Amino acid sequence: MTASLSIANIEAAAVRIKPFTHVTPVFTAQSINSISGAEVFFKAENLQKTGSFKARGAVNALFSIDDKCIEKGVITHSSGNHGAALAYSAKCRGTNAFVVMPQNAACVKIAAVEGYGGNITFCKPTQQDRENAVDELTKETGASFIHPYNNYRVIVGQATAAFELLKQVEGLEVIIAPVGGGGLLSGTALAASALKPEVKIFGAEPAGADDAFRSLQAGVIMPLHNPVTIADGLRTSLGSLTFPLIKDHVEGIITVSEKAIAEAMRFSWERLKMVVEPSAAVPLAALLKESEKFRGLKVALIVSGGNVDLDDLPRLLKVGSSSG
Amino acid sequence: MTASLSIANIEAAAVRIKPFTHVTPVFTAQSINSISGAEVFFKAENLQKTGSFKARGAVNALFSIDDKCIEKGVITHSSGNHGAALAYSAKCRGTNAFVVMPQNAACVKIAAVEGYGGNITFCKPTQQDRENAVDELTKETGASFIHPYNNYRVIVGQATAAFELLKQVEGLEVIIAPVGGGGLLSGTALAASALKPEVKIFGAEPAGADDAFRSLQAGVIMPLHNPVTIADGLRTSLGSLTFPLIKDHVEGIITVSEKAIAEAMRFSWERLKMVVEPSAAVPLAALLKESEKFRGLKVALIVSGGNVDLDDLPRLLKVGSSSG
Repeated sequence: MTASLSIANIEAAAVRIKPFTHVTPVFTAQSINSISGAEVFFKAENLQKTGSFKARGAVNALFSIDDKCIEKGVITHSSGNHGAALAYSAKCRGTNAFVVMPQNAACVKIAAVEGYGGNITFCKPTQQDRENAVDELTKETGASFIHPYNNYRVIVGQATAAFELLKQVEGLEVIIAPVGGGGLLSGTALAASALKPEVKIFGAEPAGADDAFRSLQAGVIMPLHNPVTIADGLRTSLGSLTFPLIKDHVEGIITVSEKAIAEAMRFSWERLKMVVEPSAAVPLAALLKESEKFRGLKVALIVSGGNVDLDDLPRLLKVGSSSG
Repeated sequence: MTASLSIANIEAAAVRIKPFTHVTPVFTAQSINSISGAEVFFKAENLQKTGSFKARGAVNALFSIDDKCIEKGVITHSSGNHGAALAYSAKCRGTNAFVVMPQNAACVKIAAVEGYGGNITFCKPTQQDRENAVDELTKETGASFIHPYNNYRVIVGQATAAFELLKQVEGLEVIIAPVGGGGLLSGTALAASALKPEVKIFGAEPAGADDAFRSLQAGVIMPLHNPVTIADGLRTSLGSLTFPLIKDHVEGIITVSEKAIAEAMRFSWERLKMVVEPSAAVPLAALLKESEKFRGLKVALIVSGGNVDLDDLPRLLKVGSSSG
């Protein structure tokens, strides 16, 4: 993808998803400016449809499929926000979403997919079982598979968040996005390199799931084994499409501890009055960890989502008050 | 206060507080429109400075005091948001705030007052002890007493929230505000009657602290005895200044159960991704309880604040999942 092609692509995606997604607001908070020494902007994708940026990619992907193909529905495997986003997008497009979820998926995630009318198939919680279930269901239904991040239409959809942001905040110098599979981060990098190449892009990642950090160091994808993090959206590894984009356009990856994630999440809830999920607090944790690097700069953080089980909150916050 | 005087007063207050307060955003959510059958607007005073609308009244009051008097500081008794707002306002005005708090005040409330540089005096948790402590401290310091709600400058300051709201949302038909001491509700009524007298104003109140409901029925102030509610900001009784304004300009008071408050709070957190305190969820609970009354109307809810102790959340939410 060349830069000029990217701009056209992202602009087309922005138009395509407009009727079904929000232009999310950007917040500032003096308290965080004082603490960090940077001028900080929060891009509130927790207020996006379905409660996360994932609606952008899913809607863009679904509305890019032709009428004939879309009739048979779409399919994915997801234990999280992509599943809900796909179900929502399918509802918008008037088709079926088939979502393969592990048996042990959280009740709220199951409820979200069901709430948007998605058809859930449960499988054993292993990668192999997931893939087998998807293969079988695809044969049965003829539905189009929409990968959570390793799909250009999805990536370009996610890019619309930064595209919006760059128009909302003038003179932005840095954007920090969380990185799991890399859909949001590569989309962010794509948008910036196309629209404002002078803006530096950083990924923020849990130290307990630091495949992006290690992959960039090694120059090849270093998949995760047994990631341990409360940031449940960031437990996936980079894909073959997201990795090269990140390698080419991202300045660096900042890894943060579980304690720092929990503290940043608490800060967001208590001070910003924003319900953010652990994954969405990772960029704030990264900013605070490396505040020297960003001092005096205009820095935007992509608050990727706000889907968290309130009944699980004490456990999540406990990570921040322990020594771990 | 005549209507024309009120407009001038509120406009002057809006100008006065502008440098130290936020024009808070208004949110909408399709989910709540679907459930309620109304077109609903949330005025997000949880994003106000100090985390509640109280900053409006306190700033207005403090910046209305002349330079000579203000030197000696300001004083109040408060176990909640007004204390923090007063401390914040005093800091803005470059003077001292003396806040009398009960010994058993929540740690987060104490931390908030201290965070803004307020001077705390602890007293026993009875009304008599509070008042004695304030009297003594007033004699000692010469500070000006700023009542949390029974003060016209405070009321006019709170009125700026609805004043803003009425300009932000065209064609509004109803505003629902929570009612404790009545500062916010009477200010809301004042703003509407001055600017858009066709807008109907409702108060929303916990059934366990229903003095406004009973006072309006009786035609005289019926003070609370032992209020029981998780809505800690609404445990106070109407005052001699707020009651007549409410009697003249408010359409009615809707009382709601503890369970309804907890459920509305959970809904706000989970679906709107907004951290709201129990008191701030009371208008949503009222809307849902009497949704037939508001069906098809443009209804704004004043989300009064977002100061809640996260560690206390499980207890607060439990009220909603029990039968109580």
